[in-house]
Amino acid sequence: MRYFEDFNVGDSKTFKDTYTFTEEEIIEVGQRWDPQPFHVDKEAAKQSMFGGLVAASTHVFAAYCRIGVMELPTAAVSALGFNNLKMLTPVRPGDVLRKTETVLEARLSNSRPDCGILSMQADLHNQRNELVFTAETAFIIRCKP
Amino acid sequence: MRYFEDFNVGDSKTFKDTYTFTEEEIIEVGQRWDPQPFHVDKEAAKQSMFGGLVAASTHVFAAYCRIGVMELPTAAVSALGFNNLKMLTPVRPGDVLRKTETVLEARLSNSRPDCGILSMQADLHNQRNELVFTAETAFIIRCKP
Repeated sequence: MRYFEDFNVGDSKTFKDTYTFTEEEIIEVGQRWDPQPFHVDKEAAKQSMFGGLVAASTHVFAAYCRIGVMELPTAAVSALGFNNLKMLTPVRPGDVLRKTETVLEARLSNSRPDCGILSMQADLHNQRNELVFTAETAFIIRCKP
Repeated sequence: MRYFEDFNVGDSKTFKDTYTFTEEEIIEVGQRWDPQPFHVDKEAAKQSMFGGLVAASTHVFAAYCRIGVMELPTAAVSALGFNNLKMLTPVRPGDVLRKTETVLEARLSNSRPDCGILSMQADLHNQRNELVFTAETAFIIRCKP
């Protein structure tokens, strides 16, 4: 378990864990949460500006949450928010995303002395090394017991 | 279908559609995308700072995408990004979220003359009228054919 003290400003970490998007899952997640033609209909997607099926934003966001959560659990208490969250490259069937996190800021909480506030830059790249998703995240994390 | 021309700066709309979070779905989405104790384990969640199960951030984000997408489809082409995305109030089993969107900015695209860029403020409130989620979103949308 990683605690507040385990993060230092400037530290950067790429997880071993990755996430592979399948056509089946792109359609299933699209149907459930964002049923637009380019997420759920292979033929209609070919006629769209994407030229084929692409994963919904919420699917990419979910993968961002999932990658690394089992590999290196953190004593995170709560997400506070996200800034400069950008979807830069469409995610297509077969794409494999990896996640890199860099510590931007680390400070103790004023209101909760047993916790710190971390600000992190999170980047997802695909197997062609294109930046797919980037965001600055802030969350509350526990100090070492 | 709503096109670029259907949005005017200052317009605000609350969708009739809402989203209800069940205990079963909070656990299922948590197990799949963010398996932390306060999302997936009812007993462990009672001991957490939340005092009970809460929905994962990615579950709230998914509901934000889902609400209204069938009620009032838009000719959206692609999400560009999100700013000031904040999770302000935990979402618990039984909570019902509604969505309000306000147009912050509307301009024609420089690179694609058949499209515009919309910037919107999206807010999710629960049944107690507490602000749960807020974000400024930007996306490309087609002009009227």
